[in-house]
Amino acid sequence: MDYKLFFKSCLDTIKNEGRYRVFASLERLQGDFPYARFHTPEGIKKVIVWCGNDYLGMGQHPDVLKEMKAALDQCGAGAGGTRNISGTNIHHVTLEKELADLHDREAALVFTSGYVANEATLSTLGRLLPNCLYFSDSDNHASMIQGIQHSRADKIIFRHNDLAHLRQSLEAADPSRPKVIAFESVYSMDGDIAPIEAFCDLADEFDALTYLDEVHGVGMYGHKGGGIAQELGLSHRLDIIQGTLGKAFGVVGGYIAGDRDIIDFIRSFAAGFIFTTSIAPAIAAGAISSLRHLKKSETERNRQKENTAYLKTSLDKLCIPFLRSQSHIVPVVIGEAHLCQQVSKKLLDTYNIYSQPINYPTVPIGTERLRLTPSALHTRGMIDILCQALDQIWGDLALPRSHKMAA
Amino acid sequence: MDYKLFFKSCLDTIKNEGRYRVFASLERLQGDFPYARFHTPEGIKKVIVWCGNDYLGMGQHPDVLKEMKAALDQCGAGAGGTRNISGTNIHHVTLEKELADLHDREAALVFTSGYVANEATLSTLGRLLPNCLYFSDSDNHASMIQGIQHSRADKIIFRHNDLAHLRQSLEAADPSRPKVIAFESVYSMDGDIAPIEAFCDLADEFDALTYLDEVHGVGMYGHKGGGIAQELGLSHRLDIIQGTLGKAFGVVGGYIAGDRDIIDFIRSFAAGFIFTTSIAPAIAAGAISSLRHLKKSETERNRQKENTAYLKTSLDKLCIPFLRSQSHIVPVVIGEAHLCQQVSKKLLDTYNIYSQPINYPTVPIGTERLRLTPSALHTRGMIDILCQALDQIWGDLALPRSHKMAA
Repeated sequence: MDYKLFFKSCLDTIKNEGRYRVFASLERLQGDFPYARFHTPEGIKKVIVWCGNDYLGMGQHPDVLKEMKAALDQCGAGAGGTRNISGTNIHHVTLEKELADLHDREAALVFTSGYVANEATLSTLGRLLPNCLYFSDSDNHASMIQGIQHSRADKIIFRHNDLAHLRQSLEAADPSRPKVIAFESVYSMDGDIAPIEAFCDLADEFDALTYLDEVHGVGMYGHKGGGIAQELGLSHRLDIIQGTLGKAFGVVGGYIAGDRDIIDFIRSFAAGFIFTTSIAPAIAAGAISSLRHLKKSETERNRQKENTAYLKTSLDKLCIPFLRSQSHIVPVVIGEAHLCQQVSKKLLDTYNIYSQPINYPTVPIGTERLRLTPSALHTRGMIDILCQALDQIWGDLALPRSHKMAA
Repeated sequence: MDYKLFFKSCLDTIKNEGRYRVFASLERLQGDFPYARFHTPEGIKKVIVWCGNDYLGMGQHPDVLKEMKAALDQCGAGAGGTRNISGTNIHHVTLEKELADLHDREAALVFTSGYVANEATLSTLGRLLPNCLYFSDSDNHASMIQGIQHSRADKIIFRHNDLAHLRQSLEAADPSRPKVIAFESVYSMDGDIAPIEAFCDLADEFDALTYLDEVHGVGMYGHKGGGIAQELGLSHRLDIIQGTLGKAFGVVGGYIAGDRDIIDFIRSFAAGFIFTTSIAPAIAAGAISSLRHLKKSETERNRQKENTAYLKTSLDKLCIPFLRSQSHIVPVVIGEAHLCQQVSKKLLDTYNIYSQPINYPTVPIGTERLRLTPSALHTRGMIDILCQALDQIWGDLALPRSHKMAA
C-alpha cells in the first residue's frame, strides 16, 4: 500500500473538482464587526464579512468580553479536567441553569460544540433505547447524521420537511418500537423552517420522542431568544432541544435542554460528553453574559431582521435570485463549484467583500452557493455595496436573473 | 414505550451500583492553583485539587492569560464560523504552525477537543483507506475506540502494550491490506507508557501506519514539550501524533500533527473537523502562548517531576499502594465503587482535599481508584498533608497496605 500516493490522489481529486478548500485567514476586528483583516501571502486587506454566523454581533459585545476577562482573572484559562474529574467550574453550572431557563425546561447540559451535542446525544439515545427507530429529516446536519449512524439504530430518512412522508413512515413502523423524530428548526444552507408543531403532533400520535436542532434559531427567535420553538410557543413539546453557543450567542460550545431525567441520562451515558475536557470557564462566562443580554434585549434581533428584509428586497430589485424563506439566511445559489468560486473571488478582489463559496459536502453538488448572512451589525450602506457588486458580477458573468423584474 | 420510566430506571441502576456521578462544582482560584473553592448547597470550602490535568499550572500562567485577553480585545469572543466559512482566524493559523513545530513535523490541524481529534481522524482514516485494518491497543481511550468503531473498518484489539501479541496479530493479517496501529504514549488511568519504538519497528516491518495519542505526554516530556515520542527521539517515526491543548498546556482543544498530505487529507474529509465552529481565537492565542513558553522552559516540567517522585516516595514510606510507572500519574486503586467514594469523601470532608473517585466506565469495574496528579504547583507541604490523610483513612477503613514496609 502506497499510503502517500493514496492521500495525494484523494487531494488531487477534490482539487480537480474545484472543491479543495483553502481557508481564508481572517483577523476579525473587535469593535469593528463585520469588518475583518484578510491575510494572504501577498498582504493584508480589510474586508466586510458576509458569511459569518455571529448573527447578532455578540462576539464583540462589551459585556461578553468583560465577563470573559473576569473569568480568566478569577479561574484561569482551562477547566483542567473532564466534567466529572475536577473540570466542572461554577460557570458551567450557572450556564446550564441559564440554558434550561432559556428554553423554560428543567435541565440543560453543555458540550464542547453543537456538533458534539448532536453526535453524543443521538448516538447515545439510539444505542440505549431498546430497538430504537429514528425518523430523520433528509436535510439534517452532518452531526445529526453521524450521531444517528453511530448509534447503529435503524433509521428512516423522511423527505425534507415532508409531513405526509413522515406520517406514512410512522404508520409503516412497528407501533411498539421506541421512536425518535430528529429534525432542525432553521436549516442552515437553505434557510427554510420545519413544521415543528405538526411534527410534534405526529410524535404524540405515534408515541415518538422529538429531537430539535435549533442551532440557527437560538438567540435569534422567541421573546428571550429560545429559538423558533419558543417563538411558536412549542418549547415544552420537544423532548430534547439542541442548540449552540457559537452562532447568535457569539462564543463557542453546544448544549441540549429538556426534562431532568432525559438530560441526566445523556449526562451519565454519552461518551462524547463524559470523556472530554470541559469548555473553558471564560467561554462559559461569555456565553452566560450573551444569553442574559439576549433574554432581555430585542435590539439586536430587530436590527438583524430589518437587515434581512432590506437585503432580500434589494436583491429582488436587481433580480439576483436567492432561496426564499422566513429565516435570516439568504442563500444565493450559483450551482457549479468553479463558477461559485469565481463569484466569491470577484467579490473579494474587486469589492473587498468576503463570502466563502459553499460547496460539497456542505451542500449537494450542483447547488454550490454563496450563503449571505446579514448580521445586526451590517449597515444599509454595506448591503447596498454588496448588492451592487453582485449585480455587476451577474452582468459580467452573464448569470441567470430571477424572473421577477425590478420596478 | 414508557420513555420516562426507561430513563429513570437507567439512572436508578447506576445509582444502586454507586457509580452515579455528582459533579463537584469548583471555582478554580487563578493565582492560587492548585487551590479551588468547592461549592455545595451547604456552603463553600477551600480545597486543594489533587485530580486535575492542568499538570504544569499553565492555566494560570500570566503570559497565557495576557494573550487571551489581548485576543479578546483584538478579535472578539467567538470565531464566528467553521474553519472553512469565515471561522479561520490568524490565531488558528499560527497555532497550527506552532504545533507542527512542536513535533518537528510539516503540518498540524486543530480540533475542538482531543476527543474530537481522535474520533474524527480515526473514523475518517478507517472509512476512506480501502479495506483498512486497525490494530488497537486494548486500553485505548474512549475517543479512539469511538473513532475506530465509527470508521466501520475491521479491527484487531491487541493486549495492552503487548508487543508479542501485536506482532502475532500483524503476522496473521493479509499483507496487502492497509493497516493502522493506534496506541497512546502515557495511559491516563494507569500511567504506564507504550513501547513506542518497538511498535514503530513493527509498523515498518508490516507496512502499517502509526497513530499515537500523546494527550498525557505533550507539554510534559521532550526537550520542547513534544511528548514521550520526542523524549525518545521518535517523533518522525509516527504517521500521526495526536495531542491536546487542555492538559499540560492548560487551555482546551485538540490536534493532530504529521506529514503535509495526511494532515491535509484529514482536514479535507473529516466531518468532525469540517462541520463545527472553530475554537475561539482567544483559546488559540492562549494555547500559542503556553506552547511557546513550554518549548523553552524546563522549570515547570522539572518541578512536576520532583513532585511526582516525592509523592511516590512518600506513599511508599506509608505503604499506601499505587500503580508504579515512569509517568507523572499516580493511581491509587481502591477496587470498589462505594469504598472509593468513601475515601474520596473523607479526604474532602476531613482534609479539604479533592480527589474525584474514578469509576466505571472510565476504569474497569473492580479497579475503582483515586488518580492523583501532582502538578508543578503542589508544594511538598501539600504532598505531606495528602499522604498523612491517606495514611489515616487507610487505618480507619482497614484498607490493604503495600507489602514493602517503610524503613
